[in-house]
Amino acid sequence: MDFDHQKREQGRFGQGRSRIEAFCENVRKIGRDDPRRVVHSLKVGLALTLVSLLYYCQPLYDSFGVSAMWAVITVVLVFEFSAGATLGKGVMRGLATLLAAALAVGAHHLANLSGRIGEPILLGFFVFLQAVVFTFARFYPTIKARYDYGSVIFILTFSFISVSGYRDDEILKLAYLRLSTILIGGSTCIVISVLVFPVWAGEELHNLIASNMDKLACFLQGFGHVYFEMAEDGVSKRDKSFLQGYATVLNSKNNEDNLANFARWEPGHGRFRFRHPWKQYLKIGARTRRCAYRIESLNGHLNSQAKPEIPSKIRETCSEMSLECGRAMKELASAIKTMVKPFAAHVHIENSKSAAENLNSVLQSSGLLGDNTDVLQLVPVATIVSLLIDIVKCTEEIAESVHELASMVNFEAVEPTVSPEKPKTGQSEPMKSPDDVNSPSIIIVIDEPSLENGTSDSKSRA
Amino acid sequence: MDFDHQKREQGRFGQGRSRIEAFCENVRKIGRDDPRRVVHSLKVGLALTLVSLLYYCQPLYDSFGVSAMWAVITVVLVFEFSAGATLGKGVMRGLATLLAAALAVGAHHLANLSGRIGEPILLGFFVFLQAVVFTFARFYPTIKARYDYGSVIFILTFSFISVSGYRDDEILKLAYLRLSTILIGGSTCIVISVLVFPVWAGEELHNLIASNMDKLACFLQGFGHVYFEMAEDGVSKRDKSFLQGYATVLNSKNNEDNLANFARWEPGHGRFRFRHPWKQYLKIGARTRRCAYRIESLNGHLNSQAKPEIPSKIRETCSEMSLECGRAMKELASAIKTMVKPFAAHVHIENSKSAAENLNSVLQSSGLLGDNTDVLQLVPVATIVSLLIDIVKCTEEIAESVHELASMVNFEAVEPTVSPEKPKTGQSEPMKSPDDVNSPSIIIVIDEPSLENGTSDSKSRA
Repeated sequence: MDFDHQKREQGRFGQGRSRIEAFCENVRKIGRDDPRRVVHSLKVGLALTLVSLLYYCQPLYDSFGVSAMWAVITVVLVFEFSAGATLGKGVMRGLATLLAAALAVGAHHLANLSGRIGEPILLGFFVFLQAVVFTFARFYPTIKARYDYGSVIFILTFSFISVSGYRDDEILKLAYLRLSTILIGGSTCIVISVLVFPVWAGEELHNLIASNMDKLACFLQGFGHVYFEMAEDGVSKRDKSFLQGYATVLNSKNNEDNLANFARWEPGHGRFRFRHPWKQYLKIGARTRRCAYRIESLNGHLNSQAKPEIPSKIRETCSEMSLECGRAMKELASAIKTMVKPFAAHVHIENSKSAAENLNSVLQSSGLLGDNTDVLQLVPVATIVSLLIDIVKCTEEIAESVHELASMVNFEAVEPTVSPEKPKTGQSEPMKSPDDVNSPSIIIVIDEPSLENGTSDSKSRA
Repeated sequence: MDFDHQKREQGRFGQGRSRIEAFCENVRKIGRDDPRRVVHSLKVGLALTLVSLLYYCQPLYDSFGVSAMWAVITVVLVFEFSAGATLGKGVMRGLATLLAAALAVGAHHLANLSGRIGEPILLGFFVFLQAVVFTFARFYPTIKARYDYGSVIFILTFSFISVSGYRDDEILKLAYLRLSTILIGGSTCIVISVLVFPVWAGEELHNLIASNMDKLACFLQGFGHVYFEMAEDGVSKRDKSFLQGYATVLNSKNNEDNLANFARWEPGHGRFRFRHPWKQYLKIGARTRRCAYRIESLNGHLNSQAKPEIPSKIRETCSEMSLECGRAMKELASAIKTMVKPFAAHVHIENSKSAAENLNSVLQSSGLLGDNTDVLQLVPVATIVSLLIDIVKCTEEIAESVHELASMVNFEAVEPTVSPEKPKTGQSEPMKSPDDVNSPSIIIVIDEPSLENGTSDSKSRA
């Protein structure tokens, strides 16, 4: 009995310990995944300690008094992970406070005129009115997306100053103290956020878009290998995990929108100037997501148990399409990442398009069609073909918007290192062997803007 | 010259007026789309006016003094659109303030012991430490999702009280005043938010999930009509706008997650009890989204210019599949909306599955396959078929999770109004004519749980 009890105690202790260990491991992982999180925490601590000097230093305390707490509150509420978000919130807080304080002082004087009984009634009415108007304004799409925080601060400051003013006769001093301490808090945040290991929302967006495209590229390249080449040898199941990266792309819209909103506040930094075309990134992001939806459909076939028998010719051609799209996407992603004009993407897209054109003759000669064919067996093959054709089209659209971005911000043009070679379009030549897959990409300059005109090609072909 | 100037002025004036008119129209539309927004604005105004009484009433002001401003600040920051969000923020603000105030008082006493020079240094260190720890904690997924606001308030209160305590010797009174005014502000928000025309996040989630399914149903029913029946007569372009409703479903994840988080805070209301299985709604939502991805692929074909010639037999069968899926989805949506067990959904799914099974013989006998067939012409037909088969599978999965929800919360079972009739499975009987489309749905009870076992059927058939 005693032994049992001891054992149970030990079990409980062990369970508790393993839980704590798992928690610690989680915490360490969060820090390891993105060390900037640790830096951010230290920065917040630093900013907060700095503004508390307003309390600790006698001369500072003499001039600000208890109003110093507004600086503390501002730091806690304004300091965000990215410099853009901090800047946006800081500037909005400053401006909204200024505007609201001015109006509140005005309202206070107006209320003052109406005598002792009228004053609180009129003040209450003003507070009610502005709260209703600005709360409703927060539903207005533009305000909701960009100035939500500003509206909240406006309501806060107006209510606070006009109501306090009822008790405190030095309302101007109150407004001035609140404004100046908020400016101190806000500028402390902004300075630390911008100068000490800054995290730029714009750069985050830039990298997010590139890495999303990279994930799709990984899938497409992997799909070519796993589905078409390893379907028989039974090891396909083992290697599929790396294909799931695309799933996060499906729900990235919200994150992208937020980052673009923050990025608008940021000054020029690194390779980005002040008015970098962040909207174009959202466009690329939307097209990438559309491609990801097709890939999600394709992935369903990867997981289905009943794999159809696909003649090797078709397999090769489909694999070619998928691989070439993947390569084009990878090239585009690295073009964004390095801000260098994409050269080889055209070629890969043309290759995948010519592979798609080849499909007709390949399908014709494959012997898939006979008098006693089980037509439903054809369906999955045709679907994969059709989704791949769709994906080629999506890739083309993405390439188009990346080119737009490249011309908007003057991506660097790097000289091709390999002698140019025309893409083979519309020929039924044998495709490259799979051994070529990892050969260094051939960098080729194509003169004519075949992308813009060719957008609907693959569609009508389909 | 003068006339020109006048004209230009008038033009500018007209432009300005039309802009103002457009703005007013927008504002009116926001209010009309959801009148609860107007009510919410009024509620915020009411709450704010109520807590300002702390200033206006002499006896109240005598007990709280300037601390009354915390009530005002709390109302502005805590009052959210839905009762759940307000409750969550209010409770978190209260608890975090209590905890942080207690710790800050402790830290203050500890610092007091270390003498006049040591005190500010130790206090500064404590403030730095808690800011670093809690800012980092906000990156922890569970905390980020649910207790983000609580962490912010903890940092705020701890810093504020421990720093103020350095100057104010009555730190206990300070903590007490802050806590009590925050409780007054928070409870005002919660009472008004819950009692005056409450907006329940849970109900919003419930309706959102149902309406998302409704949108997919609209598309599927419309697709059956528009693509397969009106392809020839050239009017298809006109009627397509109502098919675009599904697009909002693609990016609904964030909204659903938020609503589910808020709904967890809400007490029982209307048809929902306190611990309603909100997670199950997220599961249904995820499956609905997966279906929407397939529909997005399908929609690409609706917009492609090159419509293939589809033999009428195939068209009828595909239309049948799409329509039956749409009907099943509509039935499931209305089952959720009314919280009544879905009866006819089974039948519609079985119908669409048997239509899918029929496809084989239909395709075989359609004459699509000849010696001189352009195989690439087959591809779009096969894709539509395959996507529809996928959608049937998705619909089955959605039905499954709706049934799970129905048994979790005991949906009402309503007696079938029409005599039961077995679904026709696996027979190549002629399908219902399109005139049957809008006939009253046949409500049938199926005994065996064919859904759970049949999940992978359509896949292996594909």
